[in-house]
Amino acid sequence: MTTQVIVLNGGSSSGKSGITRCLQAVLPDPWLAVGVDSLIESMPASIQASDAGIEFAPDGGVSVGPEFRMLQKAWMEGVAAMARAGARVIVDDVFLGGAASQQDWQKVLAGLDVLWVGVRCESAVAAGREIARGDRIQGMAVSQAEVAHQGVVYDIEVDTTHTEALVCAQSIVTRMQCRA
Amino acid sequence: MTTQVIVLNGGSSSGKSGITRCLQAVLPDPWLAVGVDSLIESMPASIQASDAGIEFAPDGGVSVGPEFRMLQKAWMEGVAAMARAGARVIVDDVFLGGAASQQDWQKVLAGLDVLWVGVRCESAVAAGREIARGDRIQGMAVSQAEVAHQGVVYDIEVDTTHTEALVCAQSIVTRMQCRA
Amino acid sequence: MTTQVIVLNGGSSSGKSGITRCLQAVLPDPWLAVGVDSLIESMPASIQASDAGIEFAPDGGVSVGPEFRMLQKAWMEGVAAMARAGARVIVDDVFLGGAASQQDWQKVLAGLDVLWVGVRCESAVAAGREIARGDRIQGMAVSQAEVAHQGVVYDIEVDTTHTEALVCAQSIVTRMQCRA
Amino acid sequence: MTTQVIVLNGGSSSGKSGITRCLQAVLPDPWLAVGVDSLIESMPASIQASDAGIEFAPDGGVSVGPEFRMLQKAWMEGVAAMARAGARVIVDDVFLGGAASQQDWQKVLAGLDVLWVGVRCESAVAAGREIARGDRIQGMAVSQAEVAHQGVVYDIEVDTTHTEALVCAQSIVTRMQCRA
Repeated sequence: MTTQVIVLNGGSSSGKSGITRCLQAVLPDPWLAVGVDSLIESMPASIQASDAGIEFAPDGGVSVGPEFRMLQKAWMEGVAAMARAGARVIVDDVFLGGAASQQDWQKVLAGLDVLWVGVRCESAVAAGREIARGDRIQGMAVSQAEVAHQGVVYDIEVDTTHTEALVCAQSIVTRMQCRA
Repeated sequence: MTTQVIVLNGGSSSGKSGITRCLQAVLPDPWLAVGVDSLIESMPASIQASDAGIEFAPDGGVSVGPEFRMLQKAWMEGVAAMARAGARVIVDDVFLGGAASQQDWQKVLAGLDVLWVGVRCESAVAAGREIARGDRIQGMAVSQAEVAHQGVVYDIEVDTTHTEALVCAQSIVTRMQCRA
Repeated sequence: MTTQVIVLNGGSSSGKSGITRCLQAVLPDPWLAVGVDSLIESMPASIQASDAGIEFAPDGGVSVGPEFRMLQKAWMEGVAAMARAGARVIVDDVFLGGAASQQDWQKVLAGLDVLWVGVRCESAVAAGREIARGDRIQGMAVSQAEVAHQGVVYDIEVDTTHTEALVCAQSIVTRMQCRA
Repeated sequence: MTTQVIVLNGGSSSGKSGITRCLQAVLPDPWLAVGVDSLIESMPASIQASDAGIEFAPDGGVSVGPEFRMLQKAWMEGVAAMARAGARVIVDDVFLGGAASQQDWQKVLAGLDVLWVGVRCESAVAAGREIARGDRIQGMAVSQAEVAHQGVVYDIEVDTTHTEALVCAQSIVTRMQCRA
């Protein structure tokens, strides 16, 4: 069986985007990369200022309302349909609901061969990288570092605290080949 | 019947992105905006340097190969699935194949209520805006201005040559309401 | 006499950046483009959250404190030094202080040959373009449209309401040649 | 004596930008950050396609011509003037000419208190980060990793291979305080 979808889950600034780009560079076939950041960009600007949408608190907390959830749910169905139509897809997400978020994805991706990847980074290191990036609200890295992984089950976990994105990507590829 | 998908088609620098953002601001419900630009961003960087992918010639010509087409086809299925799952979706595309591109979308969007919008802009004006944007290959605007519309049938056409994006968006909304 | 510095002044979303890129494309020599947007990017992220820095109110109002003013003053001296060292420079600014802001620039640019350009856009049209851009706080265009020009004296004024950026740039170049 | 200018020198993808943002966050006063990337952005788009400008070869090599050099020289004078006018400035540069580039900066910054910082990163690690960033020409990291440091004398060197940007920034601040 061949992996059709790779789901990367981890807190903000844990290094998911870098691993995604390395996976796209290392994997022999072309893979589409989609994620929660591009989902938010595709929503109306006003969704970030509404109780029904997504709210980023000054302390790094993130809360989402019914309109955000509805669009997110439909977007997840769309991602699954891309994979069913033959595209290989890397999903970059933050499971704010932990195990419940994983179950939502499992339902949507039913029948597809999915590789579940946990991307970890020590909270203090992720907070430092958040400062170094300069484009994120301070506090998101710390507030999401643990909660995103609660109750989630993985095929492989990588930790970017002391390991480069490219090396993490290579571990993921090796794990995929073992399953194939 | 209520519009579920708005497809904006027009050449590079004809003003589709601006109209999309105005539609998202003006329409009462939250609409997802997806398009060929975000599709290309989601592909591996290497797809832009390969014969199988997408090639931007120095004169503004664009040619796509089998790998690009395969990912694009799967992405279109995904966009249709988002709409079927309840998201309202604005698609921003350049029909490089004219009528054939529209037929591809029609097949994929079968059963959905789609509003087809042609976005035109006089070739010389679009070329000037391409210079003013500064982030596009010079020549794309001119080479796509006519070819994107060949044989395509629309519910409404707007022309940004002398009309602002917000006014174009309002015309589109009025057209939607007449159908509802 | 040859123009060494072009100062473009106008409210947010009046079209200064587009004219700047067109000027760079049209002028035979290479010109450096600097502006208040790049100044803000070069400041610490924290300057946007501090009373001493710059504050963007939700209604589009902008207020600046002593730290912002100090860095801005030094940056203006730097821009003048670039021109004195032989670079031709296009400055893209919003004169929040009207005539007083122009006097600050006049002092700093003393001895240099400066072309003063007013960039106007009808308030309602600028507000629409602000929505179409999608990356600006709503309200800035309207609140700055008039105030930026109060008491300011120009060599040439352009109006982007009904005139393309490239055409405005060509008018500015013609005006430069008349002085040469 | 108080440091007025911090010059960070190192190859592409060695981590200079991240250290710069951490320095801006950690230092008590507001510091301006300028660098070769923002210089290139301020030049006409055409300078990247001309023999007289800057050329990025597909293998990561970078060569600059007379027009680039002239604008760069004037820009350096401007940066020095900003510091002389009271702004504290962090410069982020790649000394393509090694010791000769440092001498150019020394002449321009004469009389100012400058802290010279070498930013190193093992060539293979920098190459991996170049892939993870996804927005750089592959090969620049490797080709600049050594050459940028040839003959250059530093007050402090940091190495991002195994040390986070924030920790490097803290070492730099400690070094500054020892001199004060």
